[in-house]
Amino acid sequence: DHVIIVGYGRNGEQAAMELSENGVEFVILDKRDNVISRIRENPELLYIKGDATHEDVLEQAGVHNARALIATTPNDADNVFVVLTARSMNPGLTVISRASEIESQMKLKRAGATNVIMPERIGGQRMAKLVHQPDVVEFIEYILLQRTRDVALEEISCRNLAQQFVGKSIGELKVREKTGANIVGIKISGARYVFNPDPNMILSRNDQLFVLANQEQITRLKELMTSEK
Amino acid sequence: DHVIIVGYGRNGEQAAMELSENGVEFVILDKRDNVISRIRENPELLYIKGDATHEDVLEQAGVHNARALIATTPNDADNVFVVLTARSMNPGLTVISRASEIESQMKLKRAGATNVIMPERIGGQRMAKLVHQPDVVEFIEYILLQRTRDVALEEISCRNLAQQFVGKSIGELKVREKTGANIVGIKISGARYVFNPDPNMILSRNDQLFVLANQEQITRLKELMTSEK
Ligand SMILES: [Ca+2]
Ligand SMILES: [Ca+2]
Repeated sequence: DHVIIVGYGRNGEQAAMELSENGVEFVILDKRDNVISRIRENPELLYIKGDATHEDVLEQAGVHNARALIATTPNDADNVFVVLTARSMNPGLTVISRASEIESQMKLKRAGATNVIMPERIGGQRMAKLVHQPDVVEFIEYILLQRTRDVALEEISCRNLAQQFVGKSIGELKVREKTGANIVGIKISGARYVFNPDPNMILSRNDQLFVLANQEQITRLKELMTSEK
Repeated sequence: DHVIIVGYGRNGEQAAMELSENGVEFVILDKRDNVISRIRENPELLYIKGDATHEDVLEQAGVHNARALIATTPNDADNVFVVLTARSMNPGLTVISRASEIESQMKLKRAGATNVIMPERIGGQRMAKLVHQPDVVEFIEYILLQRTRDVALEEISCRNLAQQFVGKSIGELKVREKTGANIVGIKISGARYVFNPDPNMILSRNDQLFVLANQEQITRLKELMTSEK
């Protein structure tokens, strides 16, 4: 149930930090000597020196029982090859890949990537957005990086929604009043997003709530949603 | 009142696209022949071929009446030099810079950057977050990239708040009921963020609201906030 990080450049390093902070176990694959020396400086890091386009290296990294693989190399062709190989070895794996060129995005998806991220695109957009909406960018950073305990954006599945609420409207849960949490969106049956859902919208167990709240409010909300009395 | 983009690599290109989409005028500075040929393929792009660390080039790009400068080169030392030069030529300029190394962040701030963005850091975090919160990442993409007309996160200044609401509580505005917009945060007097503000919180003209809403709701909210009857 671990994560495999392929490539320990700047993107790979940040992915590792984020996983560490969330208590997710991971192993790093990289073939470069200088990168391996850098990894060794931190005795907490688990790594394998080798080429992740080789099946035996992925095998060694435990691709068969891994939860996800993150391909972060700066070379899109390498990422495509890693994604294809990993996907063929474990069809149930979540595969996340970096892309440098926009044209690679579709190729990576076709190779089996669950999600493709373009760091330069995100970076450029973020810089431009700072020009006209500086505080919105800062606001979202707070939420995304969870630098503060004050707030997080969390997804809560309605899978275990109490029978008393199934088929009832969102308004009938009285979420804001009873928990302080703010429902900012719903994903309906895993397909369609609705933002700021109308209080009259009917809930089903296939829905997912997106909630802006602190940890205490999240806990209260989960209790409320599953309480049968 | 234009923006100067220094460097037209992938980050610079994405920044340009984002500014175009928002109707912000900009001029690109780059010294590389191959990059200039690529820019020329798009006749809509305004550019100057030259080294942005030279004052005369920044002068030519209109640094004195520019609104912002975005330094996107992959070389942190170049970005520091550009930021220093631009800042000395126009102290009121908003200066946004890319950083590749974490250690450069402070140097860029000291050189005068208003904001520093690390694309690889954001990219790595985004990839890791996809492992454990895939739908949250997707949800935020929708809001940030505004791929949909359904929703945007906007900041609304209380500068022109109607006299009838000054010193009143947020709850008394009845924002959700009257406009459908969702207040997800407040920045108080330009300093402190409060998420999901309590309806009893008192508003002042120094506050800024962060609102999740569609364009129609934003318009209604601005009308509501400034209506004196
Ligand atoms: Ca990397
Ligand atoms: Ca660039």
